[in-house]
Amino acid sequence: QTLEGHLEEDNIQERENNSEPSHNVTPLLLDSWKPCRGLRANVKELLVMLSRCLGSVCGMRWYGFAALGMLTAILSFLMDLSVAKLLRAHQWLYMRLEGHILLQFFCWTLYPACLCAFASSFSHNISPFSTGSGIPEVRAMLAGMEMPHYLSLTNMFAKFLGLICTLAAGSTVFLGKVGPFVHLSTMVGAYLDKLCCLIQGKQKEEAGTEMLVVAAAVGVASCFGAPVSGVLFSVEVMSSHFALRHYFPCFFSAACGALTFHLFFVWSGDGETLQALYKTNFSTSLPFFPLEILLFALLGLLCGALSCCYLISHRWILRFTKTNRFFCQMLTTEKGLYSGLIVFFLASLTFPLSAGQYMASKYTTKQLLTSLLESRQWSSQSHNASVLLASLEWSSSGTPIFLSLAFFLLMKMWMLVLACTLPLPAGYFMPVFVIGAAVGRLLGEGVAYMSSGGETLWISLNPGGYALAGAAAFSGAVTHTLSPALLAVELTGQFSHAVPILLSTVLANALARSGNRPSFYDAISISKKLPYLPSLKKASFQQQSYGQFLCLGPLTLSHRDYTNGFLSSLLLSDSKLFLGYVLRSELLLFLHHCQTQPKSFDYNLYFHIVCFLPSQAYSVLSIAGAHPLFVADGGKLVGQITWSEMQQILEGLAREI
Amino acid sequence: QTLEGHLEEDNIQERENNSEPSHNVTPLLLDSWKPCRGLRANVKELLVMLSRCLGSVCGMRWYGFAALGMLTAILSFLMDLSVAKLLRAHQWLYMRLEGHILLQFFCWTLYPACLCAFASSFSHNISPFSTGSGIPEVRAMLAGMEMPHYLSLTNMFAKFLGLICTLAAGSTVFLGKVGPFVHLSTMVGAYLDKLCCLIQGKQKEEAGTEMLVVAAAVGVASCFGAPVSGVLFSVEVMSSHFALRHYFPCFFSAACGALTFHLFFVWSGDGETLQALYKTNFSTSLPFFPLEILLFALLGLLCGALSCCYLISHRWILRFTKTNRFFCQMLTTEKGLYSGLIVFFLASLTFPLSAGQYMASKYTTKQLLTSLLESRQWSSQSHNASVLLASLEWSSSGTPIFLSLAFFLLMKMWMLVLACTLPLPAGYFMPVFVIGAAVGRLLGEGVAYMSSGGETLWISLNPGGYALAGAAAFSGAVTHTLSPALLAVELTGQFSHAVPILLSTVLANALARSGNRPSFYDAISISKKLPYLPSLKKASFQQQSYGQFLCLGPLTLSHRDYTNGFLSSLLLSDSKLFLGYVLRSELLLFLHHCQTQPKSFDYNLYFHIVCFLPSQAYSVLSIAGAHPLFVADGGKLVGQITWSEMQQILEGLAREI
Repeated sequence: QTLEGHLEEDNIQERENNSEPSHNVTPLLLDSWKPCRGLRANVKELLVMLSRCLGSVCGMRWYGFAALGMLTAILSFLMDLSVAKLLRAHQWLYMRLEGHILLQFFCWTLYPACLCAFASSFSHNISPFSTGSGIPEVRAMLAGMEMPHYLSLTNMFAKFLGLICTLAAGSTVFLGKVGPFVHLSTMVGAYLDKLCCLIQGKQKEEAGTEMLVVAAAVGVASCFGAPVSGVLFSVEVMSSHFALRHYFPCFFSAACGALTFHLFFVWSGDGETLQALYKTNFSTSLPFFPLEILLFALLGLLCGALSCCYLISHRWILRFTKTNRFFCQMLTTEKGLYSGLIVFFLASLTFPLSAGQYMASKYTTKQLLTSLLESRQWSSQSHNASVLLASLEWSSSGTPIFLSLAFFLLMKMWMLVLACTLPLPAGYFMPVFVIGAAVGRLLGEGVAYMSSGGETLWISLNPGGYALAGAAAFSGAVTHTLSPALLAVELTGQFSHAVPILLSTVLANALARSGNRPSFYDAISISKKLPYLPSLKKASFQQQSYGQFLCLGPLTLSHRDYTNGFLSSLLLSDSKLFLGYVLRSELLLFLHHCQTQPKSFDYNLYFHIVCFLPSQAYSVLSIAGAHPLFVADGGKLVGQITWSEMQQILEGLAREI
Repeated sequence: QTLEGHLEEDNIQERENNSEPSHNVTPLLLDSWKPCRGLRANVKELLVMLSRCLGSVCGMRWYGFAALGMLTAILSFLMDLSVAKLLRAHQWLYMRLEGHILLQFFCWTLYPACLCAFASSFSHNISPFSTGSGIPEVRAMLAGMEMPHYLSLTNMFAKFLGLICTLAAGSTVFLGKVGPFVHLSTMVGAYLDKLCCLIQGKQKEEAGTEMLVVAAAVGVASCFGAPVSGVLFSVEVMSSHFALRHYFPCFFSAACGALTFHLFFVWSGDGETLQALYKTNFSTSLPFFPLEILLFALLGLLCGALSCCYLISHRWILRFTKTNRFFCQMLTTEKGLYSGLIVFFLASLTFPLSAGQYMASKYTTKQLLTSLLESRQWSSQSHNASVLLASLEWSSSGTPIFLSLAFFLLMKMWMLVLACTLPLPAGYFMPVFVIGAAVGRLLGEGVAYMSSGGETLWISLNPGGYALAGAAAFSGAVTHTLSPALLAVELTGQFSHAVPILLSTVLANALARSGNRPSFYDAISISKKLPYLPSLKKASFQQQSYGQFLCLGPLTLSHRDYTNGFLSSLLLSDSKLFLGYVLRSELLLFLHHCQTQPKSFDYNLYFHIVCFLPSQAYSVLSIAGAHPLFVADGGKLVGQITWSEMQQILEGLAREI
């Protein structure tokens, strides 16, 4: 077959592709439930007119980006509002039952248990794709996988309601909001993208990826009102090659989102003006002593080491739930019951009249973080018996705050690992952030206590600064990212500690990444058999030489290679050498051959084989987009392959399995 | 010729390449001046031993990154120290001559004129590549151009000393430090890279690009002690596709640089602890009213419009100095004299006893920025006759501060445009930042004046916030970047205004980029005939369709295409369609054909023809690096081309011309 034949084929295919999107859009509209047909037509006409007017100012996509930011911020605000109401209701009920210990116990445990059981079964029944964080799935979509179910409106609805229930369960379940919000944001983005295409009457282009990248930034920005760290998060977690053309849209949309989020807070009467979410009041005249830099570096290393422990136990529980028969059965058939039982167990442990009193369990997650970030020293306050409200909960039982903090850390760590197995929409970033803050606080209080005891050199030491640095360092190390350093600054509006925070985060990251271990998201990706290319690329620092495989001709794949571990070892080390190119026919043969032995088939590994073997070719293909790359066979050009073609092959295989 | 033949050829070439670096290193060491041969050998042995010890902790490159950050920060600190001393000497002399107006005039004018004349002729004679900002050159190097002269140690020495002289000329010449510092940092980086390779005994790999990307981030980070905006600057200005593997090294090195810079300041006794360079004390309880957001948006648009005026006049003067015979001759033969004359002219205008008193010319650039960022209102202070020290200079002549500010803006704008023609090492970012601050201050003072006159709704309005937002917006719009928004925050340590600053910057950028006009750096690139790919790509938002050129076969270039303006129109619009591929033979023919008519040859345009015509192919090629892409001729594979090959062709052509 000559190239021309291929080109003609491609031409036809392209024409088909061009006509396809309109097919795609119309069935969707016809199939879905459609009230008020006439009104819809009118609205559509109006929208077309409006789009012409707006289009004269700037491109339609800019309105899409602005709308994405605003809508996500409104969703975020609504969620915060309803969660706050549900939490207050629980608190009110608990206070009302004062004196009846048994009733209080049931109120404390059954409320979150019911909420989580509901969240679990509801989200599973409406859309099974809505559980978990969503970040690994969004990453996979950005890497080129097509997962339309993950972007449906039904999924958004299920995820939104489920997440409200999860968050309303409070600090007992101790789960966060960031991850699902990034997912929610991508769903809003995908919908707006479709809408923009519909209004413009254009066929769908590769703008979809752009919306996804932007949506990832907006998710974080709208969740905390932190635009810059949102963009950095998008750069880090989402794409191995960040294209500069996404940079401005990301910032634009994130700024819109953060602004809307803050303005809603002002309008709802929560603040006089636009302020940081967890505003602190550290002393700005002397935020820290220069020598404390060493302590911050130590804190970073400590957080890095702790994060390794946490990640190991997280990976262990992910494996355990897959291999243990009881867990496996519960998680596949009785999701609601499982969630309810686990949360009941967690809640009974945190009951304030039993062990809960030693771990400030009455605080909500927000209150926990606020108290940990307080600038005044706790230990000296309890010394002088002038116990303040903020530290009241930590020393309510009369135990020293050091013991409280240590007990809190010990308990929350394994409880969080257990909570990560819950099959409900939940984020895992915020709890990690709080645990990091507790680690930092513990070190800070210790240093403050020791320095106040002896000489008076460091009289005004601020343990809150350590808590902030610890939070950034630990969450950064767990997720293998640096954006938490900026997030810590944006959350508190405290810029004076920027340099020590960055130092701790960088050191914690260096330690956490040193062994080429998978990050938190990578571990979930592995467990869900999703591709997790970016982190593998990121982690590849050493350049090992696979001299014997440096062949410039096409590489021949054999099943032996796959089984005897050569390929997996290759994948784990991601050598940066050009190993060769895989022929299309070869690839197909290889994949079909392996398919006959379904026992040994691992989709995730396959994706990597295809992507990695021509190590650079993946980047080339993913950037080349629809443009074909030539495929040669023994020096003769036999055809060309595009990224979408390769994807189709892979997806077809995945479906068959 | 078959592919196999090519592959063999390539194999041989590769082997040659592998042996080349050792050739490269050895002659360099032999040719250069070498004192104490024995000592050097000992030191080298020691270094090899040390490297083995260090290498066991982490890769050699990490020490390189850390050293890069620290060295650049030390250079930055030394420069600041010497500049401060030189400025103080000038001030002291000027004060001593109090009473002798003529002597004062000569002191005021001749001091900077001599310094600049020295800087100009010195840097030209030592290394002609050391003049100007250096950012366009660094960008070109990152795009793949090889410019070894720009990375030599001689160039570094000339640039360092020249820059000190330029900065010591003070606010009269009104030039900055950032651009040359990025260039200096890349020179340090290139040297460290060589050193790392030498110590490891490895051949030089493509790590060079990595060092350049990291060095760009470190340059900004060490210049202001602002690590995060340094990294963002590197992402924005430097590369069209930012690879994630550079992200962590960038942050690591920038954090090292910023930390060292701050620590040196503490150790020199300039501050008690690590603080922002231009620390402000805005009120944190109510930094701004929610409705002020609209004013910040207005300020952004205003700055965007002003930046367009500034850029137009800058482009005009760049063209003027090339076409005007007098300027042209002066700039080619009498650089020192030209600099001296221009600076004398500028200085005589800013003489404090004449026009200078209306534009606060006694302030240094640093004092100017500090006074502009002051949080207290100037206008009300002069109303109540309680004139404070900070605003003293602005109303020293008794004129209202509004007139002073407006006069300052008017004069400084065209003076800066003129100063941009000076052939000496100088940065153009800081002056733009200060002018933006003045624009913001003017608006802020106006609003504060009006609101204090009427109702008492906005009693505690802070004009400093507007100055900060204006500075970020104007400098962002001029350079077409968003990182100044973060730089403004990092410079002042003022996070409370982050959202309005970001909003202003985004809007100013949107306006400045709307017409697809070149940015400040692009204009210099055009004037110096350097490739400036990233910005063209960045600016391409609309997707025009060139339907008739959507051919899937190879595109034939003809000289007619070039002359009748089709290609240039194509280049300006950068359509995102795949236009076709250029054959290597075709390309060579075309280039050689055009070369016979040297009149019509424009190197910059050529680069773009090659890069743009296969629009995506540029990205593919530049990322594919050393890996070949196939070149087809009428459906038959005729060979392959690599990025370096294409570069060689281009460089060969450039040299011949």
